Amino acid sequence: MKKINKNFLKDSHFITELKLCNIRLIDNSKFPWIILVPKRKNTTDISELSSKDQILLMKEIVYASKIMKKTFKAFNLNVEKIGNIVSQLHIHIIARSQKDSSWPLSVWVVKKKIYFREGLSKTIKKLKKNFGV
Amino acid sequence: MKKINKNFLKDSHFITELKLCNIRLIDNSKFPWIILVPKRKNTTDISELSSKDQILLMKEIVYASKIMKKTFKAFNLNVEKIGNIVSQLHIHIIARSQKDSSWPLSVWVVKKKIYFREGLSKTIKKLKKNFGV
Repeated sequence: MKKINKNFLKDSHFITELKLCNIRLIDNSKFPWIILVPKRKNTTDISELSSKDQILLMKEIVYASKIMKKTFKAFNLNVEKIGNIVSQLHIHIIARSQKDSSWPLSVWVVKKKIYFREGLSKTIKKLKKNFGV
Repeated sequence: MKKINKNFLKDSHFITELKLCNIRLIDNSKFPWIILVPKRKNTTDISELSSKDQILLMKEIVYASKIMKKTFKAFNLNVEKIGNIVSQLHIHIIARSQKDSSWPLSVWVVKKKIYFREGLSKTIKKLKKNFGV
């Protein structure tokens, strides 16, 4: 299992471990936002995963999507593999609301705002519960 | 098969049809950019596809990713399901270069620039060739 990138450790919080991916909450109180980080070495693109892992990734995206939708009553989900800055493969799943700070634009057009301590622990708790941790 | 959304028709050009998705080139000369549009009615989220279609979507994302990488010698690929404005399910695949106009930021932070006629037909031709059309 590849060591997790330092940026992830700094900007996100561990929620749970699935078969392929670790799930982490991104520390940005503007959007309920998780990342799925496949536990595979030297992988920057989905196409570099084995076929089996690609299917597993799709299953875990769908599983996590349903939990994000339910947990945050999301109007829409953004599911994104970017990786321009941190190249280690990771998939963003962001619960969007029509009232959030960048709707209907991308989350990338606004600056992040980290959680206050209480909001952070509440969000982590809620997510862990719904991921069955 | 669902009629294709009007915005897609206006802002993109047909490249080819795969088993699940139509592939269209986005008319933005700043980035080599395609969308995959699953030929399924009333679908806005990946999780609404059948399990079979989810796997097919992953396969077509990987297939199209490899072609985008090769065709445009991409340094990195951004693969994104957004759908805040056009809700009909579609996946963006964008070939990124370290010299493009928003690197390393998201493509969503810069305004689009439509192709000149010649550049457009060249890009369509190149893509069709590599998709085996």
